[in-house]
Amino acid sequence: MQVALDETLRAEFGVEGAWWLAVRHRVRWSEVDAFAHANHTTYLEWYEDLRIRYMAACGLPLRMDTPGCVLARIAVEYLMPLRFEDEVLVTARVSAFRRTSFRMDYATWRQGCVNRADGLLVMLINATGAKVAIPESAKQVMIERDGARQETAP
Amino acid sequence: MQVALDETLRAEFGVEGAWWLAVRHRVRWSEVDAFAHANHTTYLEWYEDLRIRYMAACGLPLRMDTPGCVLARIAVEYLMPLRFEDEVLVTARVSAFRRTSFRMDYATWRQGCVNRADGLLVMLINATGAKVAIPESAKQVMIERDGARQETAP
Amino acid sequence: MQVALDETLRAEFGVEGAWWLAVRHRVRWSEVDAFAHANHTTYLEWYEDLRIRYMAACGLPLRMDTPGCVLARIAVEYLMPLRFEDEVLVTARVSAFRRTSFRMDYATWRQGCVNRADGLLVMLINATGAKVAIPESAKQVMIERDGARQETAP
Amino acid sequence: MQVALDETLRAEFGVEGAWWLAVRHRVRWSEVDAFAHANHTTYLEWYEDLRIRYMAACGLPLRMDTPGCVLARIAVEYLMPLRFEDEVLVTARVSAFRRTSFRMDYATWRQGCVNRADGLLVMLINATGAKVAIPESAKQVMIERDGARQETAP
Repeated sequence: MQVALDETLRAEFGVEGAWWLAVRHRVRWSEVDAFAHANHTTYLEWYEDLRIRYMAACGLPLRMDTPGCVLARIAVEYLMPLRFEDEVLVTARVSAFRRTSFRMDYATWRQGCVNRADGLLVMLINATGAKVAIPESAKQVMIERDGARQETAP
Repeated sequence: MQVALDETLRAEFGVEGAWWLAVRHRVRWSEVDAFAHANHTTYLEWYEDLRIRYMAACGLPLRMDTPGCVLARIAVEYLMPLRFEDEVLVTARVSAFRRTSFRMDYATWRQGCVNRADGLLVMLINATGAKVAIPESAKQVMIERDGARQETAP
Repeated sequence: MQVALDETLRAEFGVEGAWWLAVRHRVRWSEVDAFAHANHTTYLEWYEDLRIRYMAACGLPLRMDTPGCVLARIAVEYLMPLRFEDEVLVTARVSAFRRTSFRMDYATWRQGCVNRADGLLVMLINATGAKVAIPESAKQVMIERDGARQETAP
Repeated sequence: MQVALDETLRAEFGVEGAWWLAVRHRVRWSEVDAFAHANHTTYLEWYEDLRIRYMAACGLPLRMDTPGCVLARIAVEYLMPLRFEDEVLVTARVSAFRRTSFRMDYATWRQGCVNRADGLLVMLINATGAKVAIPESAKQVMIERDGARQETAP
């Protein structure tokens, strides 16, 4: 469930830094493994869900024939394990963008940060695989809401 | 891995009854739950995999715009739990068919039957949702390989 | 997110019949298949989640060494497909119980019922597999909240 | 299915570099998303499966009370998408180790490398979370089969 990240929630989950996109989640039985920990792929599914919400907030719903993003690289750090029914807050923001790609940070919070990731996304038309420039409407969200910096490709 | 179900394999897994479509599987870590048992949805994924192989053997690869089958009903019985790395044999066969639907039996074997299911499948064009008659080539496989009986709708 | 099933929600999702346990869900990207439909195992994961919540409401949190339930049989009917980001309401109730087993009905609602299931659950100690009688506290919830009927085994 | 990586297989899948642990896999329906591509978490499940096989080959089956490894970090690169029923070869090897941790490389091959990853694993007792030294038997496999280099912590 998407939530407004106010001071109460920030304190409850130990959130640090600036994020506007936040989703509450409770660890499901189907997400834990035989050691009773949330499986390492579960975080990636949560981050994918936030990526899709972020794009929708940029006016870019997920469709085959309109600009969308695909994951080119992701680095994930597992700091603390989660258990069945743990309540967490999952956040995402864009840190930087170029012409056809951008970097997105993700974090999972429970009494501080328990998992974080840094992804590189490429903007393209899924039906053809052709790279396209990030639409201006999306750049505005990245700059105004996240203070994302524009990088120039070397 | 799809295998030819010979007497050695039948004895190894305690298979009963006639089946020609059989796939070996080893329970993955990602398929077990926090009690170390294969999750109850895992069997359904295996059966789905066999359903797709069965259709392919009928000359019906899974595509949006050609006749394919969708699950209308399934009843599953959980007889014995499976654990991480257990070796199993999964089998499927068609027991009966009508004009646009058919019944498929599934079983998972490990020293006898540990899970079985009975599904009702409807033949349609996925792109439109329109029901279509089961192609003759598919009926031939159902009759000749499984001895499936033709039922008449009431 | 668990919700109180009031008249507004009943009208919004087209819910019929009496249910007190209801959870809102939005179909995730990771839950849809290559035909853009919610995969057939997704409903079973939602029903599992409700089963666990029901037991918790009976004072029976999911643990290895206390009475818990395992699925012995389930029959599922797929009435209408769901798509990515569809909002649904998922409900569960106990219809009948015996000494060590009970029957649970499940449904998924979106402008009426799109999926329903009927499961048989057995009460046991997971660590040993030994069947145990349903605790009185759980029977009270089943009777008072769902009007579950007591059946006598033949 | 685990296979011996001979020259025929190396040519068939376009494998580069030295690997002894290789598993064949065919992309399942349940592994593809609504754009018909293998989901980005699927590769991580395959790599997890190889990690477990690697440890077993080191005499370390996955148990709560014996030394096992958990993922501390992983970086994944998505080079080419995979589709339903694509045949792939998945490989893993250890590149370096310290006292209680090691680095594992992973790759997925189909006419060359389509996905690769680099993970940092920590050796511990899962039941307590206590870090332990990598057993000598495991180091032998890492050195003799993969030529892994010993690193000294700074």
